[in-house]
Amino acid sequence: MRFGVNYTPSVGWFHSWLDYSEYQVARDLEAIAELGVDHVRIFPLWPVVQPNRTLIRPAALRDVASTVRIAGSVGLDVNVDGLQGHLSSFDFVPTWLTTWHRRGMFTDPDVIGSTADYLRALTAAVADQPHLMGITIGNETNQFAHAPHPSPYPVDAPGGHRWAAAMTAAVREGLGGRDDVLVTLAQYDAAWYDDAQPFGPEHAAEHGDATVTHSWVFNGAARHYGPLGPGSVRHAEYLLQLAAAWNPDPLRPNWLQEVGAPTNVVPVADTPEFLERTVRSAADVQHLLGITWWCSHDVPRSLADFPELEYDLGLLDESNRRKATGDRLAALVADLRGRPDSLPPAVGLIVDDVDAAGTPIPGVRLRCAPGGPVPRAWTAIAERDGRGPQLVLRSRTGAAVLDARGITRLVTVPEVLDPSPAAHAAARDPR
Amino acid sequence: MRFGVNYTPSVGWFHSWLDYSEYQVARDLEAIAELGVDHVRIFPLWPVVQPNRTLIRPAALRDVASTVRIAGSVGLDVNVDGLQGHLSSFDFVPTWLTTWHRRGMFTDPDVIGSTADYLRALTAAVADQPHLMGITIGNETNQFAHAPHPSPYPVDAPGGHRWAAAMTAAVREGLGGRDDVLVTLAQYDAAWYDDAQPFGPEHAAEHGDATVTHSWVFNGAARHYGPLGPGSVRHAEYLLQLAAAWNPDPLRPNWLQEVGAPTNVVPVADTPEFLERTVRSAADVQHLLGITWWCSHDVPRSLADFPELEYDLGLLDESNRRKATGDRLAALVADLRGRPDSLPPAVGLIVDDVDAAGTPIPGVRLRCAPGGPVPRAWTAIAERDGRGPQLVLRSRTGAAVLDARGITRLVTVPEVLDPSPAAHAAARDPR
Repeated sequence: MRFGVNYTPSVGWFHSWLDYSEYQVARDLEAIAELGVDHVRIFPLWPVVQPNRTLIRPAALRDVASTVRIAGSVGLDVNVDGLQGHLSSFDFVPTWLTTWHRRGMFTDPDVIGSTADYLRALTAAVADQPHLMGITIGNETNQFAHAPHPSPYPVDAPGGHRWAAAMTAAVREGLGGRDDVLVTLAQYDAAWYDDAQPFGPEHAAEHGDATVTHSWVFNGAARHYGPLGPGSVRHAEYLLQLAAAWNPDPLRPNWLQEVGAPTNVVPVADTPEFLERTVRSAADVQHLLGITWWCSHDVPRSLADFPELEYDLGLLDESNRRKATGDRLAALVADLRGRPDSLPPAVGLIVDDVDAAGTPIPGVRLRCAPGGPVPRAWTAIAERDGRGPQLVLRSRTGAAVLDARGITRLVTVPEVLDPSPAAHAAARDPR
Repeated sequence: MRFGVNYTPSVGWFHSWLDYSEYQVARDLEAIAELGVDHVRIFPLWPVVQPNRTLIRPAALRDVASTVRIAGSVGLDVNVDGLQGHLSSFDFVPTWLTTWHRRGMFTDPDVIGSTADYLRALTAAVADQPHLMGITIGNETNQFAHAPHPSPYPVDAPGGHRWAAAMTAAVREGLGGRDDVLVTLAQYDAAWYDDAQPFGPEHAAEHGDATVTHSWVFNGAARHYGPLGPGSVRHAEYLLQLAAAWNPDPLRPNWLQEVGAPTNVVPVADTPEFLERTVRSAADVQHLLGITWWCSHDVPRSLADFPELEYDLGLLDESNRRKATGDRLAALVADLRGRPDSLPPAVGLIVDDVDAAGTPIPGVRLRCAPGGPVPRAWTAIAERDGRGPQLVLRSRTGAAVLDARGITRLVTVPEVLDPSPAAHAAARDPR
């Protein structure tokens, strides 16, 4: 299992790409390496690299490559995200996709072709570096596809699959045959919780080499359970298990690519404890590729207009001084490093995506959202057993699947939430 | 009278600010200076200089200052535009004004304050340079205020005045007392032609040190008159006279800050002739500060998505080779340079902004738009006299005003368009 940090530059935040300084990058990455983590995730700004649809700036690609090289020099591997896209409430969209030039980000053939060109070039610029760990198509690209985005670029689910496949293919072309680099699609959690979203769990589970999750308890989890309540500190574990339910391959790696302690719902004093409980429970998930904390550095107070919580998400402050969360993560990494991978939980909690006749039941994602019956039942089991169960789609409860996943006992949501004898009678051993 | 060129960098267009090269700038400006012009207008990109509301990048300001210095070294003065804003169909709006951070560009107090900070800092960065000729608040900022912009930032006319006053004041603060530098507000011609626009003729006439006009015959003029027809090649002259009608100060300078030969309505073969006739007739306008041609260099064909005409507006091609329009402008400048300023035309054509009782008549701007009665009457006189008349608002026909403007004879639109004896009877000497 890997531990890493999402790298938010201490000087100038991501605007520092406009004033690229190897010195500042080295200073930040050295402080990150001292936490004991093994990788960082970095975020070029799309409009800076590709300001015109047919202009991919060599200097910008060199800056990205320099960052990967510097990271390697301090012992950090690097995941490069392409389409930013969205970062901490700010959208960076090239002018060739806005106002007079607005057209389908996910659907217009010219846009798809040029976006693929960008990802191919970005990947090729770093493909020769031994410390390259992965390429993600972009940070939470599904944010741009639907409400609540204020001006989304519409696409439907099949269109989302076509787009994700085209982007993934472009990255693989950029890698030029190198096969030790992870290719991933990153989505924010509405993909699993909001049935209206065109990008859904299938997109997470079926594209790239690992299923990526981003866990943020300001999504309702902290409100339901309190900042250190079980559904808050186990939210990342839950989301990992939920995402795994959709993996067609039971051995597919799960990557908790973003998890943080947002101080709008977690008091600052509780953030170290929140961090430890969150990381320890997430580390129990089977086939876990790694945990990558958000984020390395606080947003400098000199920069305006960020949501208040963004100024206090860092493990380090803007002067590279380690905060209490940084100390806690460093200690945890030292403790957990080298631990054997967790075995899959033997209990499978059924998610009713279909009825007894196999007919799809609408609203499955909403039932899985914070406060819904699925996470309530899952959390109840987790609190009883000390570890959350796997989640199993009712449509995928065949013996072979359960066997491959190591599930020996199935339970249903009603029998957990309504543990009367009558409900218990419905429980059964799947074998 | 001054002659200048709007500087469109030959390599990378305005994206070249991301890859700033003193060598490329010097190469381009030297080729421009060889045309014999005395100034250029330059266009920083707003989001590049001010990527966060409270981050004004020193390096970006240094690049602007370097450009002014290099221009000076080849004998060119420089006008610096601030808020770009809009350029050749592309909008460059900082992320702190879009999507999740969208708010009033012209009305939000924080935005107004920070936009003023930007203009103050930009101005201060070049205020010590002897070759600084002027500061324009931004290129056609009124484009962002109303339809047909696809997502305008609403404001009303008084709000537009408050905004323009705040921006002008910020620039003057940046100048630190230097008073030989022009401060101007630039608008596209819908300000004069579209009654729904919140920014109008009064904004052009009442803010800054000169009234700025941008003449583009793709606005309907070329369709009405043909590419070399009188209303096309005299459109710039007409618009200058129309703008002057709103000047409270009859001696206020008029600056034709943009005029070009758009090849969607002017055949390439006709562009040199269009240029010469346009410049010669515009040069006849009283109190003319200068004519600044759009633009220096063709947009490189390697850049995508520009309207076709933008690839052929340069006086020089992307390799700095002079085109036929460049040769023609150079010859014209040599011919017209040093010519005494034109006297005001003695004829005043009345624009009916009020009725006989002094009550405002709606639709005055539409009547002044291409194809409307005012330009038809104005063009008829211009063709008869070889020079267009002044334009006079009926609300401003007092003897003192006419005397100050040098107008000795008034004519009305009906008596020009319907030259029957009955109509003639309505003509009168104003004295």
